[in-house]
Amino acid sequence: MATIIGIAGFNGRMGQQVAAAATSLPDVVVSAGLNRGDELDDSLHIDVLVDFTAPEATIERAKACAHRGLPFVSGVTGLSPKQLDDLLVASETIPVFYSRNFSIGIGALLRVLPELSNALGGYDIEVIEAHHRHKADAPSGTALALVEALRTAQRPTYVHGREGTASRQPGDIGIHSIRGGGNSGEHTIIFMNDGEEIRIGHRALSRHTFALGALRAACFVVGRPPGFYGMEHLIDI
Amino acid sequence: MATIIGIAGFNGRMGQQVAAAATSLPDVVVSAGLNRGDELDDSLHIDVLVDFTAPEATIERAKACAHRGLPFVSGVTGLSPKQLDDLLVASETIPVFYSRNFSIGIGALLRVLPELSNALGGYDIEVIEAHHRHKADAPSGTALALVEALRTAQRPTYVHGREGTASRQPGDIGIHSIRGGGNSGEHTIIFMNDGEEIRIGHRALSRHTFALGALRAACFVVGRPPGFYGMEHLIDI
Amino acid sequence: MATIIGIAGFNGRMGQQVAAAATSLPDVVVSAGLNRGDELDDSLHIDVLVDFTAPEATIERAKACAHRGLPFVSGVTGLSPKQLDDLLVASETIPVFYSRNFSIGIGALLRVLPELSNALGGYDIEVIEAHHRHKADAPSGTALALVEALRTAQRPTYVHGREGTASRQPGDIGIHSIRGGGNSGEHTIIFMNDGEEIRIGHRALSRHTFALGALRAACFVVGRPPGFYGMEHLIDI
Amino acid sequence: MATIIGIAGFNGRMGQQVAAAATSLPDVVVSAGLNRGDELDDSLHIDVLVDFTAPEATIERAKACAHRGLPFVSGVTGLSPKQLDDLLVASETIPVFYSRNFSIGIGALLRVLPELSNALGGYDIEVIEAHHRHKADAPSGTALALVEALRTAQRPTYVHGREGTASRQPGDIGIHSIRGGGNSGEHTIIFMNDGEEIRIGHRALSRHTFALGALRAACFVVGRPPGFYGMEHLIDI
Repeated sequence: MATIIGIAGFNGRMGQQVAAAATSLPDVVVSAGLNRGDELDDSLHIDVLVDFTAPEATIERAKACAHRGLPFVSGVTGLSPKQLDDLLVASETIPVFYSRNFSIGIGALLRVLPELSNALGGYDIEVIEAHHRHKADAPSGTALALVEALRTAQRPTYVHGREGTASRQPGDIGIHSIRGGGNSGEHTIIFMNDGEEIRIGHRALSRHTFALGALRAACFVVGRPPGFYGMEHLIDI
Repeated sequence: MATIIGIAGFNGRMGQQVAAAATSLPDVVVSAGLNRGDELDDSLHIDVLVDFTAPEATIERAKACAHRGLPFVSGVTGLSPKQLDDLLVASETIPVFYSRNFSIGIGALLRVLPELSNALGGYDIEVIEAHHRHKADAPSGTALALVEALRTAQRPTYVHGREGTASRQPGDIGIHSIRGGGNSGEHTIIFMNDGEEIRIGHRALSRHTFALGALRAACFVVGRPPGFYGMEHLIDI
Repeated sequence: MATIIGIAGFNGRMGQQVAAAATSLPDVVVSAGLNRGDELDDSLHIDVLVDFTAPEATIERAKACAHRGLPFVSGVTGLSPKQLDDLLVASETIPVFYSRNFSIGIGALLRVLPELSNALGGYDIEVIEAHHRHKADAPSGTALALVEALRTAQRPTYVHGREGTASRQPGDIGIHSIRGGGNSGEHTIIFMNDGEEIRIGHRALSRHTFALGALRAACFVVGRPPGFYGMEHLIDI
Repeated sequence: MATIIGIAGFNGRMGQQVAAAATSLPDVVVSAGLNRGDELDDSLHIDVLVDFTAPEATIERAKACAHRGLPFVSGVTGLSPKQLDDLLVASETIPVFYSRNFSIGIGALLRVLPELSNALGGYDIEVIEAHHRHKADAPSGTALALVEALRTAQRPTYVHGREGTASRQPGDIGIHSIRGGGNSGEHTIIFMNDGEEIRIGHRALSRHTFALGALRAACFVVGRPPGFYGMEHLIDI
């Protein structure tokens, strides 16, 4: 039986991608598209709400879902610690699936990066991310997630363009943001020491891959107990 | 107290690299350099023998070390199954440290690749390796080791230039060998599906890094109980 | 005034891409889509025929256009020398625009590669091309065009998977074909000597870029005198 | 007959590289190594002075050479406009060969980049350079030279870490500086539009390649008429 999905942020770029991707999957149906101001009406018969709005709206949608007992999936970036906390509170009542990047590849890398960062303890690390020229924020939410995964070995983060190259300390992880053209999203992690370099790169070929990941998350989360879920639950190792 | 090292294959390319690298380390002394025909004399006072010869000579050196109770480190490539078995037999008497690639980076990648290969189960995989124009064998021993680590998910291997592109089956792992210039050794693993690509690349900046790794292995193995050791024992995770 | 375009091979992958791309351009209208068996009827009012069929059909379409005095654009690959000659004969009567790759980037690289190949005379060169897993031919037509541009310095070509690595001679240009996932087309040229490496890479983000290039060629060729045109005519230097 | 060379900045990193590289060339002899405070004595019998000091010392050495009629080669970076002017004045009396990067590959790229930048007029451009963790300045002199070659189409330059990402204007060329490990010098130029990307990368495998280039320049410049020479004179196209 198909999973019936509502999309919050339906007219946005990712909302439209999710709606389009759903048409290619036999076991998924989008039955509701919500935009700003649209209530989560009780008469809507959906199994899960997929949210690609913005931090404030995300928290409101999460609360409405918790009130109604509806599973909630969100791919929003830029949540404040307080907002992340609100999401966690909602996850005590409903299953909440949250990821800043719904690609399987990024999810798999996030799994192995802490191990690599430990094994390559004394190596310098820098992260380069590249996105299309219209992307407003820098660094990307995914770059920040990668750095969190790398920072297990107590390496501070450092964002180029904020503190300047000169202030970089040993052990810092630098982030460089490339903007231009139509790049759907590319992230590269470089480990360097005197004798060798390891480069781990991920490239999304289109935003379609993120939409498919969000739908996969939506199908996963329906019927689960309340809790806070992420890509690590989608990836079999 | 310094570890006292003998080198078998002393006049070879890697033997010379190991000898040179030893001069940069305070806790290592090379006191014997053996070439073809030189016996492992009982009067030699060494703590460990580091071998960069060739399969047949390696097995003879391993047997002589086992006979004398001397720890043995080898970085030879191209061992036959029978020769690998001989090395395992020696490791019942002495500590044997064996690796086709002594870089920490390759060792760390070999640790995480099975996990990644499982997480990215349905993805196409190809491996590209590039080396200087004088390298005789293709594909490199390291490329074969990487493919072994990737093949956990029952993916057959496929070497380009032997069976031809047309014969490739779904799930095969292709290996491409680039030869040219002065490249000290570069390996790239590409995971690909319809929506994304992950590229994991390793580059040795010089052969010095391999020599340092072999010396690190030599220091590690002295004083250990008999057994078969590899890079996974050098790498903290 | 809009350029009115007919597409031969309308139902094919590239034919559909060209039709879709035309809807995004204000100065282009597609008024006819021809498939196998469809005649180039005299009643069709088009300014130019854009052909993405296959070698035999391409030559028939070119002859029909020459007969009718209609400009002709083709992006077919795999033409035999005899077929290429037929295309040249047609170009004595009508403007013929022919390219195996309609991206501006590849066109620009083809312009500068002979110069680079001369400047880097003694360097080893290898070419890597990567395409989605459904691409039937290897190496790609674009890879062959790149090698032609590099071969000015009398370097023979060499295709991996046909003659085998062992047979490579100094000065050969090796071509490696990666197949997997959804890659829209990527080509990398590597120049290598003992001290340095130059890598020149091109990546199409989608096939849309090739369709736009074909339409740009179609607009360019309308109103030109008979002749054989290529990407070098589209690119301002 | 061998070219007899003096090196200014003999005890510096590049001075030592040049001296070492000279031993591998049959037609070059280093007969004088000058450090801070050493005069260019009239009794020195050298054909050319190769300078790897620092801006102020470079200008003094150039003036001394002009005074004595001795050809002068310099690879110093960071010259002020006034100092560059002083070098030009010296070149009215003696042949002066000046380059911020003595690799043939960078020289060849500098030749073709203006052409590429014109052909890809509307594309976004960013430059990434990576060097070992001890490099003091950022961006590298080579990166600045590449940007000058790209800027023909009136694109302003932009250095990340100084003005910040937000201030980037359309047409700007961004420069990103990676610092870490033992990288001998790597530069990548990225051209991007909505449909495609071109990446042009150069990597020095060791500093030896720069030393060989400086010696090649020294041999070239001996016997030439006064004038200002650069890598473009060493590269045959």
